[in-house]
Amino acid sequence: MRIMILGGDGYLGWPTAMHFARRGHDVAVIDNYLRRRIARETDSQALIEANDLPQRCSVFYQLTGREITHIEGDLNDPSVLYEAVRAHQPESIIHYAEQPSAPYSMRGFDEARLTLNNNLNVTFNVIWAVKDLVPDCHIIKLGTMGEYGTPNIDIEEGWLEVEHKGRRDTFLYPRQAGSLYHTTKILDTDLLWFYVRTYGLRVTDLMQGPVYGLSTEESEMDERLLPNFHYDDIFGTVVNRFLVQAVAGIPLTIYGKGGQTRGYLNLRDTLQCVDLAARSPVERGDLRILNQLTETFTVKELADQVARVGNRLGLEVEVQTIPNPRQEAEEHYYNPKYSGLLDLGLQPHYLTDAVVEDMLTRILRYRACIDTNRIMPRVKWSG
Amino acid sequence: MRIMILGGDGYLGWPTAMHFARRGHDVAVIDNYLRRRIARETDSQALIEANDLPQRCSVFYQLTGREITHIEGDLNDPSVLYEAVRAHQPESIIHYAEQPSAPYSMRGFDEARLTLNNNLNVTFNVIWAVKDLVPDCHIIKLGTMGEYGTPNIDIEEGWLEVEHKGRRDTFLYPRQAGSLYHTTKILDTDLLWFYVRTYGLRVTDLMQGPVYGLSTEESEMDERLLPNFHYDDIFGTVVNRFLVQAVAGIPLTIYGKGGQTRGYLNLRDTLQCVDLAARSPVERGDLRILNQLTETFTVKELADQVARVGNRLGLEVEVQTIPNPRQEAEEHYYNPKYSGLLDLGLQPHYLTDAVVEDMLTRILRYRACIDTNRIMPRVKWSG
Repeated sequence: MRIMILGGDGYLGWPTAMHFARRGHDVAVIDNYLRRRIARETDSQALIEANDLPQRCSVFYQLTGREITHIEGDLNDPSVLYEAVRAHQPESIIHYAEQPSAPYSMRGFDEARLTLNNNLNVTFNVIWAVKDLVPDCHIIKLGTMGEYGTPNIDIEEGWLEVEHKGRRDTFLYPRQAGSLYHTTKILDTDLLWFYVRTYGLRVTDLMQGPVYGLSTEESEMDERLLPNFHYDDIFGTVVNRFLVQAVAGIPLTIYGKGGQTRGYLNLRDTLQCVDLAARSPVERGDLRILNQLTETFTVKELADQVARVGNRLGLEVEVQTIPNPRQEAEEHYYNPKYSGLLDLGLQPHYLTDAVVEDMLTRILRYRACIDTNRIMPRVKWSG
Repeated sequence: MRIMILGGDGYLGWPTAMHFARRGHDVAVIDNYLRRRIARETDSQALIEANDLPQRCSVFYQLTGREITHIEGDLNDPSVLYEAVRAHQPESIIHYAEQPSAPYSMRGFDEARLTLNNNLNVTFNVIWAVKDLVPDCHIIKLGTMGEYGTPNIDIEEGWLEVEHKGRRDTFLYPRQAGSLYHTTKILDTDLLWFYVRTYGLRVTDLMQGPVYGLSTEESEMDERLLPNFHYDDIFGTVVNRFLVQAVAGIPLTIYGKGGQTRGYLNLRDTLQCVDLAARSPVERGDLRILNQLTETFTVKELADQVARVGNRLGLEVEVQTIPNPRQEAEEHYYNPKYSGLLDLGLQPHYLTDAVVEDMLTRILRYRACIDTNRIMPRVKWSG
């Protein structure tokens, strides 16, 4: 299959590129290194930061004999995307090319405006390049479970049948997010749904929960193939941050009551999910929405698990509650459905104590590089 | 009250400015004449086109002694809006400053991208300027009934209580629109709702149906105060287009079956609605959504009424069905609720035969200026 991966430098993008290339697919990646620029500007550099794409693609080629085409370019510029699509004629486009940090999107006017414009315009350009050049191409878009927020009813997979005063209709599941970043993903979904109906595109929108993990099957071949690993308040997801706090000997910080429940998944399962989606494209005119998670935890449960395993390894882990910098419900109902990807064949890697221990052990090798100034929240939602 | 009107050159913006100024309010208008530029570029000039704002404000001052401050500027540039808000310190901002044409938004890549970026960024800039400079200011945003589309259940006023598997929650009413323009209004509402929750803004989102009419109380003072009047396929709303077709002696064109039902209102009632909203600001942290229409018709009913009245005036009006250039349901359930503005005191002007006759009579004076090449649909939704 000819696959283009937008945002191919990222925590998910690069492992996805290796995954498909190693399995014989024809892979092209595009990235403008926006995340790296933001990380430098906000002093949020990753604990493990991969080399730029040309070096990594070269290492990957030496090890596997598989070429990954890499393009440095800003997908906000439609000519960059149109040219790449014309050259590569993708059958699937996997779209990760968004500013992915909720705290960054809440930092101030410039950061919010960048997030809104980057995310919406890249999605818009993808829609148009596919419509104009490769209308049969399957767009696989990374959404987020955060689009749903924390409603008091079960979270279905993308759609909700509503009965109202004796009549019925089915709608996109109503969404209400907790950051501007998450809100841009709601807008992306609305935009995709409009153009799917109008131009008969094929789209899968993967509503993904927070991802954790350091390595994938491919990165095990050579340390130089590891994806970036963030633990900072800007790009670090909660599990990765807790693991680093445990290793650094500073308390795991729970924001507020810690009853915030989310659906999580292992980085290796992200690859499985995207692979399953790509191998079962939807029909023209269909928007398929799949909830991409394998299990749910409260933040407190995660902290307790990391502390328990860390203490077993002799790390002396403490758990601390700090004022919540975000605006979010700290205790709430949460019951998301996520059978779609299991039905396609997903075999989950759960967050067992063994998995936590493996991740802690890997991070211990980087202990000296941890900068504890990057961990505590530097952005407050109240502005 | 100190009021800023964004998009103050427009069909609604200018009458709104006069309405408030004549009643003693301190009014500033901003516009970048985007609609005029698009009209020239698409050969869609208005039948009646007002002078630029400086001339009209001067005429208005001579007649009433009331000054309207006018600023030419692009609200996409945050510094334009920040400077104006700093100078004017508005208590209400009435936000009409969007690219308002559905067909234009469906014309091609450039037009769609302009619509998306203009509309979202102006709304974004309004949110931030209010948050940063005048956090108590009441934002009155013009949305559209088109955000709801044509659901098979009753359209409530902005919010829907959902019961699902024995549990309940209330959501923004699920929305699904029929053009990119209408979709940008959905995105606006999502953006406003996020920032209302986060920063405690005061927002009223007026979901307005198609507006018809040529004149308002203030424009009766002098013909030079008339708002622009479009009948073309780009900016002309359906009632205004039918009136011009009747006068021009060409058939009224119904798109498809003509069972498309929408909620309509008179231009004079738009002014009442905005006035009522401004005089009853919501609390900090509230998003009030009001459905702004006074009655519903099918397209066929409208055509039949215009034909009936036109024939009575001796115009020999025919009604013709043409293939629908849009993608929309041509027969559907439609039951919108619209009690909120009536509860605030709205006194509707209904579309009686007398009103149709008055409008036809006014348009007859401009008969020689009608360009019939501008009336038939030049943009197809299928691209």
